[in-house]
Amino acid sequence: MGQKRISDFGVEIGTMRKGRLDKISDVEGVLVGHCSIDTETHKTGVTYIEPGAGNPFARKLPAAAFVLNGFGKSMGLIQIEELGCIETPLFMTNTLNVGLVHDAAVGRMIERCEKDGIELRSVNPIILECNDSNLNDIRERAVKAEHVARAIADARPDFAEGDVGAGKGMICHGLKGGIGSASRTFELDGKTYTLGILALTNHGRLPDLAVGGKPIGRAIAAAQAARAAEADAGASAASAIAAAAAIADAPDRGSVILVYATDAPLSSRQIGRVIKRGSVGLARLGSFIGHGSGEVFVGFSTAYSVSGDSDILPVAMVREEKLDVLFRAAAECAEESVLNAMVCAGTVTGFRGRRCESLASYMDLLGG
Amino acid sequence: MGQKRISDFGVEIGTMRKGRLDKISDVEGVLVGHCSIDTETHKTGVTYIEPGAGNPFARKLPAAAFVLNGFGKSMGLIQIEELGCIETPLFMTNTLNVGLVHDAAVGRMIERCEKDGIELRSVNPIILECNDSNLNDIRERAVKAEHVARAIADARPDFAEGDVGAGKGMICHGLKGGIGSASRTFELDGKTYTLGILALTNHGRLPDLAVGGKPIGRAIAAAQAARAAEADAGASAASAIAAAAAIADAPDRGSVILVYATDAPLSSRQIGRVIKRGSVGLARLGSFIGHGSGEVFVGFSTAYSVSGDSDILPVAMVREEKLDVLFRAAAECAEESVLNAMVCAGTVTGFRGRRCESLASYMDLLGG
Amino acid sequence: MGQKRISDFGVEIGTMRKGRLDKISDVEGVLVGHCSIDTETHKTGVTYIEPGAGNPFARKLPAAAFVLNGFGKSMGLIQIEELGCIETPLFMTNTLNVGLVHDAAVGRMIERCEKDGIELRSVNPIILECNDSNLNDIRERAVKAEHVARAIADARPDFAEGDVGAGKGMICHGLKGGIGSASRTFELDGKTYTLGILALTNHGRLPDLAVGGKPIGRAIAAAQAARAAEADAGASAASAIAAAAAIADAPDRGSVILVYATDAPLSSRQIGRVIKRGSVGLARLGSFIGHGSGEVFVGFSTAYSVSGDSDILPVAMVREEKLDVLFRAAAECAEESVLNAMVCAGTVTGFRGRRCESLASYMDLLGG
Amino acid sequence: MGQKRISDFGVEIGTMRKGRLDKISDVEGVLVGHCSIDTETHKTGVTYIEPGAGNPFARKLPAAAFVLNGFGKSMGLIQIEELGCIETPLFMTNTLNVGLVHDAAVGRMIERCEKDGIELRSVNPIILECNDSNLNDIRERAVKAEHVARAIADARPDFAEGDVGAGKGMICHGLKGGIGSASRTFELDGKTYTLGILALTNHGRLPDLAVGGKPIGRAIAAAQAARAAEADAGASAASAIAAAAAIADAPDRGSVILVYATDAPLSSRQIGRVIKRGSVGLARLGSFIGHGSGEVFVGFSTAYSVSGDSDILPVAMVREEKLDVLFRAAAECAEESVLNAMVCAGTVTGFRGRRCESLASYMDLLGG
Repeated sequence: MGQKRISDFGVEIGTMRKGRLDKISDVEGVLVGHCSIDTETHKTGVTYIEPGAGNPFARKLPAAAFVLNGFGKSMGLIQIEELGCIETPLFMTNTLNVGLVHDAAVGRMIERCEKDGIELRSVNPIILECNDSNLNDIRERAVKAEHVARAIADARPDFAEGDVGAGKGMICHGLKGGIGSASRTFELDGKTYTLGILALTNHGRLPDLAVGGKPIGRAIAAAQAARAAEADAGASAASAIAAAAAIADAPDRGSVILVYATDAPLSSRQIGRVIKRGSVGLARLGSFIGHGSGEVFVGFSTAYSVSGDSDILPVAMVREEKLDVLFRAAAECAEESVLNAMVCAGTVTGFRGRRCESLASYMDLLGG
Repeated sequence: MGQKRISDFGVEIGTMRKGRLDKISDVEGVLVGHCSIDTETHKTGVTYIEPGAGNPFARKLPAAAFVLNGFGKSMGLIQIEELGCIETPLFMTNTLNVGLVHDAAVGRMIERCEKDGIELRSVNPIILECNDSNLNDIRERAVKAEHVARAIADARPDFAEGDVGAGKGMICHGLKGGIGSASRTFELDGKTYTLGILALTNHGRLPDLAVGGKPIGRAIAAAQAARAAEADAGASAASAIAAAAAIADAPDRGSVILVYATDAPLSSRQIGRVIKRGSVGLARLGSFIGHGSGEVFVGFSTAYSVSGDSDILPVAMVREEKLDVLFRAAAECAEESVLNAMVCAGTVTGFRGRRCESLASYMDLLGG
Repeated sequence: MGQKRISDFGVEIGTMRKGRLDKISDVEGVLVGHCSIDTETHKTGVTYIEPGAGNPFARKLPAAAFVLNGFGKSMGLIQIEELGCIETPLFMTNTLNVGLVHDAAVGRMIERCEKDGIELRSVNPIILECNDSNLNDIRERAVKAEHVARAIADARPDFAEGDVGAGKGMICHGLKGGIGSASRTFELDGKTYTLGILALTNHGRLPDLAVGGKPIGRAIAAAQAARAAEADAGASAASAIAAAAAIADAPDRGSVILVYATDAPLSSRQIGRVIKRGSVGLARLGSFIGHGSGEVFVGFSTAYSVSGDSDILPVAMVREEKLDVLFRAAAECAEESVLNAMVCAGTVTGFRGRRCESLASYMDLLGG
Repeated sequence: MGQKRISDFGVEIGTMRKGRLDKISDVEGVLVGHCSIDTETHKTGVTYIEPGAGNPFARKLPAAAFVLNGFGKSMGLIQIEELGCIETPLFMTNTLNVGLVHDAAVGRMIERCEKDGIELRSVNPIILECNDSNLNDIRERAVKAEHVARAIADARPDFAEGDVGAGKGMICHGLKGGIGSASRTFELDGKTYTLGILALTNHGRLPDLAVGGKPIGRAIAAAQAARAAEADAGASAASAIAAAAAIADAPDRGSVILVYATDAPLSSRQIGRVIKRGSVGLARLGSFIGHGSGEVFVGFSTAYSVSGDSDILPVAMVREEKLDVLFRAAAECAEESVLNAMVCAGTVTGFRGRRCESLASYMDLLGG
C-alpha cells in the first residue's frame, strides 16, 4: 500500500516471524474492505472482514469472543459464546451506527444465502464498534446501508491501514487512531501456521503511551504543550492549549476492537484463550483498561468448519501445551497492530475543529 | 383488559401473593406498550418496556442479564454485565429486526436526552428478540422506526397480553405464544415489595408441555391428530395433518425472553441470581432448554439509581439469605407469565397459511 | 443390587431409552465406589468416580463444569473451565472434608503416576461436596485418608444407590437423600451412545417436591403432621412435631452435585451445554434453586483424549444441531437419578437424634 | 523490615501516591503472616492474610475473584463469585498442599467461631497456590497444620517480602520469586482511600522480563551465559550452563496470585473490575500469560460488611466513572509488588541443587 508502518520506523515488536504481508489476510482467504466517510463534520465509516472462502452461513467457522471491558455495544457475541462459531462476516463501525449496520448486514446475508439456495430465517451478524464522537458528529449516524455495501465490495488482501473505514474518527492514546493489522507465523507438527489480527484502535491516554517500553506519550504531551506556548497569545492558541490539555487529561473513553484469524485448528475454547492475550499487547503500550473503554476481542479459525451433514464431525485441536506460541503471537500482533494503526494515520481535523495528530509526526522523540 | 388469564381457568401457579394487576407494572413506574403488525404475511411487532419514572439515561438503574441459552441475537447485554445497569428502556421484536429497532431506539434516546439537556454520544439500548419466522415473513423485516415510536406511545400500566406487539408471530410449545406477564409481592423488614415479569414466549415443543404438572401437551397433540383424521380426506386436511405433525415433531427452535423488574433494592449481582431462577418456571412447563432456543433474561431494580454527583453513592441491598423469597417469586412469575401469554393469545393463521392454535381452546383437556 | 428404584414404583421419567444398568456405568469404563461412615454421630462418607480405563492424568478427557448456584466448596472447577479436561477421578464427600479428601486424592495420584512412570508435580483433583451437617457431626470431619482409599478400592460398575458413601448424611426435599444414578441411550450416525449421571442429592424443600408432576411433597408434609398429632402428647412426640415442622419450613440449605459421563464425542463447550440441562430435571422435581443450595455439575466424555504426542490432535464433535437428544437425556437423567437416590435410601436417624424418612415409605401417596 | 525494595533501586512504578508502608496492610486492619519451611529439599511455606478487624465469618466482606488463566488449583472461588463475599482469611501455599491447608483452615475457623459463640457447619476458606516444584520437593507435601497455625500467629502489618512464607520456593521470570506487596492512595469525595496488594509471584520467563519498560531479562540471560562460559570447563560448569539455558528456554509454568484489599466502598462487581487490571501490571513486566501459568486474583473491601440483622442492608458503592483511579492503582500495585517480591528475595539453592538467582544481583544491568 506504500504506507509507512511501525517497523519502517525501526520499531520491531516481539521476536516471532511475521507473515508475508504482516496482515490478517496472511491467513488464507481472509479479506478486508473499507468504506470511509470524510466530510467536515463526519469522520466515520465501515470496515468489513470476510473470514474465508465461501458463504460463512453454510460453512460456519469455530470462533470465540472475549470481553476485556464490556463498556461497549458490539453485537453478536452471545451466540458466539454459546455455539462457538461465526456464521457471517464481521463488520466494524461507530457506536451509534451498530443497529443500522446490523440491519444492512442481515439484508446482505439474506441475498447472499438466496444465491446459494438457502432460505435464511435467522442469522447472527457480528457488528463491532468504537465511539468516534470526538472527531465525528456521531449523533447524525452518517453510516448508511450503501456504505456497508461499499465496504463489502472493497474486500481485498492488501488493504489500507490507519485513518480509513471504521477507523476514520478514532483517537488512540490522544493521537490519531484507526485500523491496524499484523500477523505472526509458527510451526506445528512441522507445518507453518499463521495468526493474524485486525485492530480498531480508539483507546488509551496520551501520557500513558509507551512504544517499545519507552514512555513516548509523556514526551509528546510535553512537546504539544511547548508548541502551544510558543504560539501567539491569540485566542486560537489558547484554545489549542486547552484542547491539548483536554486530550492529555482525558479519561480513557473509547474502545478497542481486536479481530483475530488463524488457520491453526483450535477449538472455540482454545480460540478464547488465544484472543484473551490481546490484553497483553494493549498493556505494553500503556493502556490500563480504563473504565470507559470497551475492549472486545473476537477470533476465528479457518482450519475446519462446524457445519456438515453427518451427526459427528471430525475436527482437530492444537494440543493445549502447544498454545504458548499462539499466546505469544496474539500479544505481539495486538501490540504491533495498534502501532500500525497509529503511524499509518495522518493528522486529522474533525468535528467542531478538533485536531488530532499522528504518532508518525512524533516518532523522532523515541530516540535511538 | 378483559382478557382471560391462566388463573381464570382455575390454574394457580405457586403459593405467593400476586400484585394488584399481576403484571410487571405492579412495580411502580414500569409501563409496557405494544405495536402490532398484522397482515396476511406479517405477524410481528414491537413491545416496549419503560423501566420507571424519568429518563433512564440520566437515572441509570441497577440491572443484570442472564443467558440461559445463547442461541439468540439480543443486543446490549455485555454492557449490562460489565456496568451492572441499564440506561434505556427495553425493546422486544423479531430476530431480523433487532438492528433496525436498535437504530430507532438510538434515535429516540438522542431526542429524549436533548429535551433533558443531555448531548448523548453513546448509549446502550436493550433489544431483545425471538424468531417469529413460522408465522411471519421475517425476511422482509416489516418492523420500521414508526412501529417503534407507536410502541413507545402506547406505554401504560394495564397493557394487553397474548398475541400482541412483539408476540404477534410467536409460537410456544407448538401453540400460539406471545406476551405474558405476572407479579408477586413479599415482605422485607415489614415493608411490601414486588417482583414482576414480562415474557416473550416462543419456545418449547408441544408434547413436552405440562400445566400444573399435568402433561397436557401430549393430550393436545393426540386431539389434534384425531381431529385431522376425522376431517375429509381432502388435500387441505392432509396438509393440516402434516402441519400438526410438523409442529409436534419440531425441534425446539425459537427463544424465550424474560424481563424482570423489582422495587426491592438489589445489587446487580443479586439481580443476576434472581433472574436465573426464571429457568425453573420454564422447566416446570416442560422446556428442556432446546439447542435452538435462545433464552435470555434481563432484570432491573427501581429501588435506587447508580447515577449521581458524589464519588460515593449510598445504595442498599437485600441481605443474601433473604433472597429466597425473590428466587421463588422469579420462578412463579416465569411459569405464570408463559401461561398467560399462551391462554391470552387466540388461534392465528399466518405466513404461508400456517395455523397455530390457542392453548385456551384446549384447557378443558386439563381435567379436574 | 436388589435395590428398589423409582421405576420399580411405576414412575417412568421421560421417554428416552435407558442403558443396561440405567446407571452412569453404562458408559464403558466408568466405575463408582463408596465408603460409608455410619456411627451414632457420623453419617458421612466418600464416593469415587473412575472416569474410564487408564490413568486419567496420562489420558486426560474433555470435560466441563457448570455452577448453577455457587454456594458450595467444590474443588478443581477453575482448571476444568480453563483447560476443558479432567486429569483425575472425581470424589464426593461432605463440605468440611473437601480439603482432606483433596489431600488424599493428591497422594493417590502421586502413587498411581509413579507406577506409570510419571513424576507428578501438579495435579487437579475434582472434589465435590454437599453439606450433611443435619445428620452428621460435620465439625469432627470424620472422613480420613483411609476412607478415600476404601472408596477407590470399592469401584465397580454395579454400585449401590441411596444412603451410601458421600450420600450417607444427605437430606433431599426434607426426606432422606443420597446417591442416585441413571442413563439414557441415543443414536448418532446410526451408532448407539450413552449419557449417564451420578447424583449426590441434598437439596430442596419437602413442600415443593413433585414426582411426575404430582405435588407429593405437600401430601407427605400433611401426613407427617397428622401422624405427629396422633402420637401421645409426650415430650418425644412434641419434639417429633417440631422436627417435622422444622424440616417442612426449612430454607433450601444443602447442595446437589451432578456428574455426567458420555461416550459421545463432545467438545468441552458442548459438554458444558449438555450438563447445564441438569437444572431442568431438578426444577421438575420442585427445586427453585434455593440461595443456600450449592448446585454444581461436572461432565466428561470418554470418546477421545486431549493428551497425545503430536502438536495437533484429531478429535471429534457432535454437530451442534444434534445436541438436543443429549440435552433431553441430561434432563431425564437428572430427574430420575434424584428420585433413585431418594427411594433407594431408607429412613435414617442421625446426629442429635434427627430422623429423616425415606420417600419410599410415602410412594403410595402418589396415587394412580 | 530493612529489606531493599524496588524503589530503593531508583525504580518508581507509576505516578500515584503510595501508602505509608507501601504494603497491603496500609488498608486498616489487614495483617499478613508467614511460616517458611527451609530445608535442603523443602523450600515452601504458608502465607496468611487477615482481612480486617473481627471474625470474617461473622462480618463477611464484599469480595470478588478473577481468573486470568485457570491452570491452577486455588480453592474457594466459586462461592466468592456467587455470593460476592469472603468469610475467612486467605491462605497461600504450594499446589499440592492446598487440600491440607484447606483442612487446617477449616479447623481454625471452627475454633475461632466457637470462641465467638458460632456453631460453624459450613465455611469457605480461600486457599491460593503456586507451584514451587522447581525448588521444593513438592510431592512430599511438607506443609502441615502446624505451619498454618504459625503463619496465623505471625500476622502483622509490617511483614517481610521476598523469599518467605508461601514464596519460599517460587521462581519468577527465571529469577527468585516470592511474596511482594504495594499500595496506592487516592481521593474520593475529599477523603483518602487505599488500595493494597499482596502478590505471590511464580510466573514468567527470563527473556521476557522488562523493568520500567527496559528488557533487562535478555541482558540477564546474556550475563548468565557469559559467566557460565568463563567458568572452568568442568562438569559443574556444564550443568550450570544447562540449568541457565533450561530456565531461559523454559515455558511459563507456575502461577501468580494477586490479593487486593481496599477500604473504598465497592460492590462485588466493582471489585471484580478493579482486580482484573492486575493483568496490566503483569503484562508490563513481560508476561504474556503463558498456558502453564495459573493466574488468579482475589479482592475484598473492608468498607462495609454484607452481614447484618435487617433484611435490607445500607451499603455504598463508588460511582462507576470514578473507578478509573482504582484501575490505575491496581495496575501500579501489581507491577510494583512483583518487583518487590523479586528484589527482596535473595539467591536460593533448592531441591536437586537447583539455583535461582535474585533480581537484586542484576539491577545494575538496568542502566541509568
